[in-house]
Amino acid sequence: MSPAPPPGSVRPGGRTARTRARVLAAVSAELAENGYDALTVDAVAARSGVHRTTVYRRWRDVGGLLTDLLDATTADDWQPADTGSLRGDLAALNREVQAALTERPSVAAAVIAASFRSAENARALRRMWQDRYARCGVIVDRAVERGELPPDVDARALLVAATAPLYHELVLLGTPPDPGLPDRAAESAVLAASAGAFTRS
Amino acid sequence: MSPAPPPGSVRPGGRTARTRARVLAAVSAELAENGYDALTVDAVAARSGVHRTTVYRRWRDVGGLLTDLLDATTADDWQPADTGSLRGDLAALNREVQAALTERPSVAAAVIAASFRSAENARALRRMWQDRYARCGVIVDRAVERGELPPDVDARALLVAATAPLYHELVLLGTPPDPGLPDRAAESAVLAASAGAFTRS
Repeated sequence: MSPAPPPGSVRPGGRTARTRARVLAAVSAELAENGYDALTVDAVAARSGVHRTTVYRRWRDVGGLLTDLLDATTADDWQPADTGSLRGDLAALNREVQAALTERPSVAAAVIAASFRSAENARALRRMWQDRYARCGVIVDRAVERGELPPDVDARALLVAATAPLYHELVLLGTPPDPGLPDRAAESAVLAASAGAFTRS
Repeated sequence: MSPAPPPGSVRPGGRTARTRARVLAAVSAELAENGYDALTVDAVAARSGVHRTTVYRRWRDVGGLLTDLLDATTADDWQPADTGSLRGDLAALNREVQAALTERPSVAAAVIAASFRSAENARALRRMWQDRYARCGVIVDRAVERGELPPDVDARALLVAATAPLYHELVLLGTPPDPGLPDRAAESAVLAASAGAFTRS
């Protein structure tokens, strides 16, 4: 659920692909270390070792860099963990969300803050989440196949209910990370689902 | 759950209290209409009709104005609605949260955005939420008295689980408001609680 490209996730490609990978890795690092306010095309160019003229021509400005960083995640090969149970899958997802939001520096926290600075940034982040929640639909599909959930469950509502307490506590309420929260939030969502919540009426 | 002072909520007081009420009403209105970036001490002074020297002396800067707006909510008389059932109380709370986040202009949305601009703003907003969630504890107390919940339920965990999907969808994911979500999120939290979630082990 994090926009930091994991090592090796950008497939080997031509020179253009390598340039993009270097520039986006520099955007991640700059954002995480110095925040959105300090993000500049020049700093990204210097860090990436790509000529600034190339960066300006291809990405234009900070908004272009951030949008491409987020849009690049929709082409990565991230998939939610398959642990064998609905509760385990949701807990694993929540642990990933909590780790991304609390690591220091956190690219995830930086792109969320940036989403409050421009509508372009907000749209790009929402596209990323849309894609991530859609990919997490497989968690619900597997649970339906195993008979853990009825077939008419609203996958997105269940996934949002399971993950929302993490985002609310860590991003908005600013609560110190609670190592038990990922599991407890997953468990609550499973209990609600088992009792008939999230079922399309 | 909104920092906009409801009409009549500032108790009549001396000249100092009336000045503060006028200034904070102007901060709300400026924030909601023009956003944090356009908020200035001069604009607040002009709108409130309070002399700018007074505003600068008492509130110093934009951070001081926003902090006082949020801190003032901890002295208001807001209480969650008492509908006679846990589900009804949580649904009423969620409808209030959704209304505050989706009204246009929205002071609530503006102060959340501002919390990503300075640590001082973030701390003030978190104090407000801390106070609001503590006041909502009465919802859980009443449910325990009615026998709807066991006495060892974690009130804050339940209240966060009930409200978090609203904040996540509306503030972070940017989903268009769903008129059914306040009730469904309340219902899911009640189902989870009835199945034993949020119980301190």
